[in-house]
Order: sequence, then C-alpha cells, then structure tokens
Amino acid sequence: MKSIEDFILLVQEEIKQYHFPKQPKGLYEPLDYFLKIGGKRLRPVLTLLGADLFGGDIQKALKPAMGIELFHNFTLVHDDIMDDAPLRRGQSTVHEKWNLNTAILSGDVLFVDAFEKVSDVDQPFLKEVLKVFVQTAREVCEGQQKDMDFESELDVTEEEYIHMIQFKTSVLLGCALQIGAIISGAAKSDAEHLYQFGLSLGTSFQIKDDLFDYGTKSIRKPTGIDIKEQKMTLPLIHALQQADLDQKRWMINTVKNHHTDRKRVHELIALVKALGGLSYATTQMNAYKDQALELLAGYPDSVYKNALITMVRFVVEREK
Amino acid sequence: MKSIEDFILLVQEEIKQYHFPKQPKGLYEPLDYFLKIGGKRLRPVLTLLGADLFGGDIQKALKPAMGIELFHNFTLVHDDIMDDAPLRRGQSTVHEKWNLNTAILSGDVLFVDAFEKVSDVDQPFLKEVLKVFVQTAREVCEGQQKDMDFESELDVTEEEYIHMIQFKTSVLLGCALQIGAIISGAAKSDAEHLYQFGLSLGTSFQIKDDLFDYGTKSIRKPTGIDIKEQKMTLPLIHALQQADLDQKRWMINTVKNHHTDRKRVHELIALVKALGGLSYATTQMNAYKDQALELLAGYPDSVYKNALITMVRFVVEREK
Repeated sequence: MKSIEDFILLVQEEIKQYHFPKQPKGLYEPLDYFLKIGGKRLRPVLTLLGADLFGGDIQKALKPAMGIELFHNFTLVHDDIMDDAPLRRGQSTVHEKWNLNTAILSGDVLFVDAFEKVSDVDQPFLKEVLKVFVQTAREVCEGQQKDMDFESELDVTEEEYIHMIQFKTSVLLGCALQIGAIISGAAKSDAEHLYQFGLSLGTSFQIKDDLFDYGTKSIRKPTGIDIKEQKMTLPLIHALQQADLDQKRWMINTVKNHHTDRKRVHELIALVKALGGLSYATTQMNAYKDQALELLAGYPDSVYKNALITMVRFVVEREK
Repeated sequence: MKSIEDFILLVQEEIKQYHFPKQPKGLYEPLDYFLKIGGKRLRPVLTLLGADLFGGDIQKALKPAMGIELFHNFTLVHDDIMDDAPLRRGQSTVHEKWNLNTAILSGDVLFVDAFEKVSDVDQPFLKEVLKVFVQTAREVCEGQQKDMDFESELDVTEEEYIHMIQFKTSVLLGCALQIGAIISGAAKSDAEHLYQFGLSLGTSFQIKDDLFDYGTKSIRKPTGIDIKEQKMTLPLIHALQQADLDQKRWMINTVKNHHTDRKRVHELIALVKALGGLSYATTQMNAYKDQALELLAGYPDSVYKNALITMVRFVVEREK
C-alpha cells in the first residue's frame, strides 16, 4: 500500500519520462508541450489507487493510467478549440500557440496514443477494459456536446446540468478507478461499485470547480471565467430559479451580452451569492461527497478505504 | 468465396443499417449524414476479402470492417476542416453544413465508434488487431501532418511524397486486409504479406487519384482542385524536376499565388503534361500495381488470388 502522495510522484515521474516521437515535429512538439504544462493528474492516480485496492501490480497499472491521462489531455486540446480558450493552466493553449489545424491533428494522434496505452493490459482483462473505456470516451464526447448545446439555452434545469457534468467529467474518474480494479482481477461487481464511487466523487469535484468561478481562491482560472464564457454552472442555475423576473432578465442579459464587462460580472457574482446560489451548490457538492463516502461504508476499515476517503477530502477541500 | 460485388453489397447494406444514437442530435446527426454520403467502401471490402482469403467468418469480419470504414470517415471529417474543403463527394462537408465545433466533436466520437468496432473481434486476435490498427491510425495522422507541411514547402522530393501518401492512404488499405486475415487465423507472416500487398495497392490507388486532378475524367472532384489547394502531387513534383528555371518559377508562382485563376490552372496542367509529369506518374502507378501483383505471385492460382487481382485492376482502371 502506497500513499496518495507516492502515487502522485509515480505518475509525475512517468509523465516526465514520457516522450512522443521526434517527427513529424509539427505533430508531436505541441503534445510534449501540452502534456507537461501540468495538472493535478487526478485520473491516473485514481487508476493506481483502484489497482492497489485489489492488490494489483502498480507498474502494470501505470500503462492504462497514462492512457487515461493522455485521453484527458486529448479532450482538453479539442475542448480548448471549441471553447475558444486562449489559456489552459495559465499557459497558451495548443490552437493559440500553434494553430487550429495543429490542435485538431495533434489531438487526434494523442487519442491514438491514449487508446494504445489503455489497451496495454494483460490479455484476460483487455475486452472488459476496452468496453469501459469506449463507453466512457463516448459519454465524454456527449457531455461536451451537451455543454455546447447549453450555451444557446437559457432554461437548463439542474437535472440536465448534473447529467452534463457527469458525462463531461465524472464518468472518466469512475472509469479510471474501474480500470485499475479490472486489471487487478477485482470481481465485476467490486469494479462497478468503484466506478459508482468515482461518479459521485467526480460530480462533487466538478461542482467544486463551479464554485471556484464565484470567487473561492483558485490559481486554475480567474474568477468569473465561466460566466464570461457564457457557461451555465450550478450556482447560476440555482440563482436563476430563485430570481424574480427582473433579476432573471438582468442575469441572462449579463451572461449572454456583457461577458467582457468586468464590473457587471462582479455584480452578477454578488447577485448569485445573494440568491443563495453558492450555498446551494456547496450543499450539493457535499451531498455528492457524502454519496461517495456512503459507497465506501459497506467495506471494513482498512488503509485502502482510508486512501479513498483521503481522495474525497482532497477533492472537496482543495483550493485549486 | 464471394465475389467483390457481393462484398460491396454486403458492406453497403451494413452501412445502411448502421445507426448512431439519436441523442445528442447535434453530435450524431452529422455522422448519419456524412457516413451515408457514399464512397467506394474500398477499405471494408478489403477486410472482408482478407478474411475470406483465409476462410474466415464474413459476418464476424463485418464488425472490424465497419470499424475501419468509420475510422476512414473520421479522418475525412477532420481532414476536410484542415483542408478548408467545402465539398466531399459533391456534398457539403460537416464543418460547412454545421460548423467547426460540430465537425471536431462529431469526428472525435466517430473515432471512438471506430475503435469499438475494430475491437469487436474474438479475444485471441484482439491484441494483434489493436496493435496493427493503432500503428496505422498513428501513421495516418502523421501522413496528414506531412501533407500539411508540404503546403509550405516547395522542394518536396518524390521520395518524401511517396512516403507521405503511403502514410496518409496506403497503410490503411494494408491494415484493412491484414485485420481481415488476422481474425481469420492466418499465420502472422501471411497477414503481414497481405499488408505489404495493400501498401502497394494503396500507393497505386493514390497516384491514380493524383492523375484525376490532371483531367482524367472523375466525378469525385473537379480537375485542378489539388492545384487550387496548393497540394503537391506526383505529376507536379516530377514536372518541377524537369522544368527549367523560368518554368519552375512560373509553376510555383501559379500553385502558391494563383489558385483561384481557372485559366492559369489549366495552363499549369498543360505544362505538367508537356514536361512528362502525367506519363511519369502513370508509369509509377503501374509500377506499384505490378509490385502488388508480384506479391501475389508466390501463391498458387485460386479464386482468392483472382479476387485480389480484380481489386488491383479496379483500383488502376477505375474512372472515379
């Protein structure tokens, strides 16, 4: 049993050692750049944790763990194009630093690498691993589509929103854990249980991210960026439900038309707070956190269980 | 043993029956549209042929065959963005009919589907199938990158060009045949031999495509479109080698600066012809065709061998 910190170091070392081919330079150089920008490396750590829980070989688990991290990075490269985002983790995005075509094609080949790494598991587990991964990859694309659809919709319900973030974010956390379990010979039901845990964890994680947009200190992105990008998030959706007609009109107007006006964004943040959007989102974040913890309740106390609990705390208490 | 025509019908039926999920509509509707635009369906037919050659189950082979066709369509959707192409097979491209983001994301989920279908093979063959497919998918991306790199290069050698089209086009034909062979229990060396055959076939196929750009009648694309897109092709590369300094300057100037001037494009086509570019490319096309046929020479005469020979003739003699 290793600690989460050990796993993070292992993953960081693996990424440091990871090299794309030298040629064609225009294809791979952007990937060397992007992969090494940084990130929490949460997903590969979850795969190692999932493997460790069932006594798996960590060295073997590192390969699909890397595959999942590569897949995550692939989605970021393409999402950044779709969101027209100039920055990622404070650095230039690929389409910004190079160009659109490079970001599309380098992203594509990164997806190929992701599949290769995820498939690099022992033969008896390969079918099941691919099944989970393919299903997840599809849902992540569907989640991104819903996210884009929401940009032109103003009456997104909380239920639709949760469904969207679960596809866009949570399923990959579940998948990361489940694949770690599968390749370590866990029973199917145990692996699926771990997936469900990851789903709750991921939902809590994403709502935490939403909250950062409302002024909780974060080095990941400046406050208000989601608002400026006209993204619906849970605090805003709840606040809209609570607002009177005038407030609603003003809020929608702000999100849709004034996204570069800093003062107005701050007024919106204040109104969302006043209407209880932040406290509601915090409650929901904690509810998903509790759901995740409950999914662990059936297991006897152990160092493994403690590691998962630590992971839940990390997600909810993190400040970036 | 079925005829090539039987296989084409089988593949067409399979594609007709193939349905993407209904939701999210914005993600899957463009794929239903694009997959059904048409095409020669050469690649899935090659997989069925590869399977049939080694006594494989054609119904089983249809799944990876579809996977390879989906992969091919995925590359077309993304390549059309990168080439800024308004039309594909006479119909609007996805980014043109919908928008950039749709073309990126629908392409991505199509890639997921491709992987799923290619992986839908019997367990003992899965590792080998994935190995071949992943390697090929990577090379196809690298080929597209080289193709884009060539747009800003004026001194592309014939060798570099052949390498590029082999990655961009030929390897997938080889892969399609090889996967058919693998899942039918062919010996490794036989499957690899079939890949080599596909590589030669694909190279001949692509040079035939290049020739269409110089006035050989084709309904696939209007004459001169590659020139207008500033693409280097074999007739042009050879003609540039034969040209004197003034002709060379004029040709390069035409390709780089006058790509919308119809008259000048036609003058360029005439000059490429006069400098022997077309006859040289025809010779090379035939050389790769002969190479493909030679790779079959070691096999005894059989209906299987005849089907492959028919395929070679189809590729070289086709008029679209």
